[in-house]
Amino acid sequence: MPKYRLLAPGPVPVPERVLQAMARPVLHHRAPEFIPVFEAVRADLKRVFQTEEEVLILASSGTGAMEAAVSNFVSPGDRPVVVLGGKFGERWAELCTAYGAAPECVDVEWGQAVTPEAVREAFERVPEARCLFVQASETSTGVYHPIRELAAVVREHPDRLIIVDGISAVGVHDLPTDAWGLDVVISGSQKSFMLPPGLAFLSLSERARAELGRATGPRYYFDLRKELAVQPENQTAFTPAVSLIFGLRESLQMMLADGLAVAFERHAMLCRATREAAVALGLKLYAPVSPSHACTAIRVPDGLDGKGLVRRLRDVYGFTIAGGQGRAAGKIFRIGHIGDLDAFDTIAAVAALEMALSDLGFPIKLGEGTRTATELLRDFPPRGG
Amino acid sequence: MPKYRLLAPGPVPVPERVLQAMARPVLHHRAPEFIPVFEAVRADLKRVFQTEEEVLILASSGTGAMEAAVSNFVSPGDRPVVVLGGKFGERWAELCTAYGAAPECVDVEWGQAVTPEAVREAFERVPEARCLFVQASETSTGVYHPIRELAAVVREHPDRLIIVDGISAVGVHDLPTDAWGLDVVISGSQKSFMLPPGLAFLSLSERARAELGRATGPRYYFDLRKELAVQPENQTAFTPAVSLIFGLRESLQMMLADGLAVAFERHAMLCRATREAAVALGLKLYAPVSPSHACTAIRVPDGLDGKGLVRRLRDVYGFTIAGGQGRAAGKIFRIGHIGDLDAFDTIAAVAALEMALSDLGFPIKLGEGTRTATELLRDFPPRGG
Repeated sequence: MPKYRLLAPGPVPVPERVLQAMARPVLHHRAPEFIPVFEAVRADLKRVFQTEEEVLILASSGTGAMEAAVSNFVSPGDRPVVVLGGKFGERWAELCTAYGAAPECVDVEWGQAVTPEAVREAFERVPEARCLFVQASETSTGVYHPIRELAAVVREHPDRLIIVDGISAVGVHDLPTDAWGLDVVISGSQKSFMLPPGLAFLSLSERARAELGRATGPRYYFDLRKELAVQPENQTAFTPAVSLIFGLRESLQMMLADGLAVAFERHAMLCRATREAAVALGLKLYAPVSPSHACTAIRVPDGLDGKGLVRRLRDVYGFTIAGGQGRAAGKIFRIGHIGDLDAFDTIAAVAALEMALSDLGFPIKLGEGTRTATELLRDFPPRGG
Repeated sequence: MPKYRLLAPGPVPVPERVLQAMARPVLHHRAPEFIPVFEAVRADLKRVFQTEEEVLILASSGTGAMEAAVSNFVSPGDRPVVVLGGKFGERWAELCTAYGAAPECVDVEWGQAVTPEAVREAFERVPEARCLFVQASETSTGVYHPIRELAAVVREHPDRLIIVDGISAVGVHDLPTDAWGLDVVISGSQKSFMLPPGLAFLSLSERARAELGRATGPRYYFDLRKELAVQPENQTAFTPAVSLIFGLRESLQMMLADGLAVAFERHAMLCRATREAAVALGLKLYAPVSPSHACTAIRVPDGLDGKGLVRRLRDVYGFTIAGGQGRAAGKIFRIGHIGDLDAFDTIAAVAALEMALSDLGFPIKLGEGTRTATELLRDFPPRGG
């Protein structure tokens, strides 16, 4: 059995320190020892989200927070603007439709980022639209959408909200919630937070808080008003995932120890090294212009079995990466940069990719990828002394 | 903080599966559930040691087993032959001296292996010598001594015993205890057994068992007669390290799952890749002729601060390797190949070494080492499908 290595765009490898914290005997969430932990987690979450406002903690996967962002802000008959261009863009549209809305979709070619102009045009087509739903990092295509510029478009009208799926972007890309005026930003534990799945996070701007009572559709478990009422008392509306919150305390400390800028730089460099290594091996990038730093999407070379490549990396070399989803299935593969990963994990993954490609008969010069990644990452790790 | 990576010649990284097994609530060692575990461990240890005889399990570090091998076979005034040539050879001599013996030492230049002729000459100088003490893998110099040939020399006289420190060699090099007629072989948990330190193992040939009552010096905790009396009943003479034994059950299963030959090949290949990568980077090997596959010892280049290199790898890049010990301190550094390590850990370590050497101004071409290691290890991982 090869050694297990996880370089998917989530779930991600969890640091030993976090695993240990989660392995402690479970405390009741009303126990006095739990309160300071929750308080510390709330404070640190605000720092990671770069906001002065409360960041709510939900016991759900990221999709639960996506549903909360729809059910609390969209009413039947609404016409929210939704950016497509990947599986998770489609999920926004499906959620809006499920809650009775008729989303105005901005179609984007998979692998490309949306333009601010396309979003402005959608709002011009549907002037009554009050919300923009968009991914910061579209995990299915490895694309980063230009959130700062999109927020500026939304802000051209005082009543509009920009609701950002930052599930694989918070802690990865610089997304200053308050400075950019992002009304709702969501994320999930199993991405840059280096935890198992099971927690979702959701920030609310003052504008968004004022809108919380407006949606007319049903909501209960994900009723953000309930959470907002109790979280300042260091409680959640429903039983919290206590073990994950103990782990979260550790992972937030790790994320913040060096400052967020270091984390952004790390993800950018792991992404760049992977991209340039892929190019050096003669591969083509799926998101050539505006890459997400959470994962690098690479086109399966013509004539190669994409699923076989992913399977071979897993079964023979022990590397779990991701294939394509939806219409990209079999056409791309994706190497993650989030979780407890560093330069040397990335170099090792490039070596495994070289071996697997070579096994499958793709003509490469072994070592061209690792050389490129080693050169690029040579100046990356924090260099003391 | 860089990610922690352990490539020392022990302690070694412990697989998650083993850590989990050790984290279970502690059982009393007389509990009925413990007996089958101990029984399975005994059977698997025999397979790893390649012997039909009992392999005793001691709650101690490897040095405890070295002491047992001396105190049970050496009496005051005895003249055992001891192979020097490294820190652990010296430890055999120190132990023999502590037990009142006057060892006949075979001096070997550090970095070189002993020759069978030198050992034969020592026995000719001291015909009354009854024991040869030698390391299979001299961890301090990265040298493998020719155990098969040494055993043949010892066997030229029917009453002599060959006592082998296999602490960093069992499970790494092919050392068939019975087939080669090795009388005592010792090992420790924190090497190829992929466990934390705390357990030592010791095999006894029929010849060695017959000698157990002969030594006249004191021994109690390490009195092998006590252990031999109870181990067939699945007990130890003193309280066993229960958690470690639960871990050992898992690690033995992992070691034996693919067969020992695969483990020997893995260590040989990780060693070869590291050596050739070092040479490609312009470095010189400390043990050029007869390398141990447990670790690769590399000379610190002239003018470079050897301790600074090891410190930089640890503090800046997160890689814990070993410096030199004793008279080799500051002159060499050692990269381990034992524990839960594979091709990709080795490639990553070579990348870190390149970066650290480059930081310190040693002229290398970045990527030459990783390319060499990737090419060599390309055909190494088991290649299914």
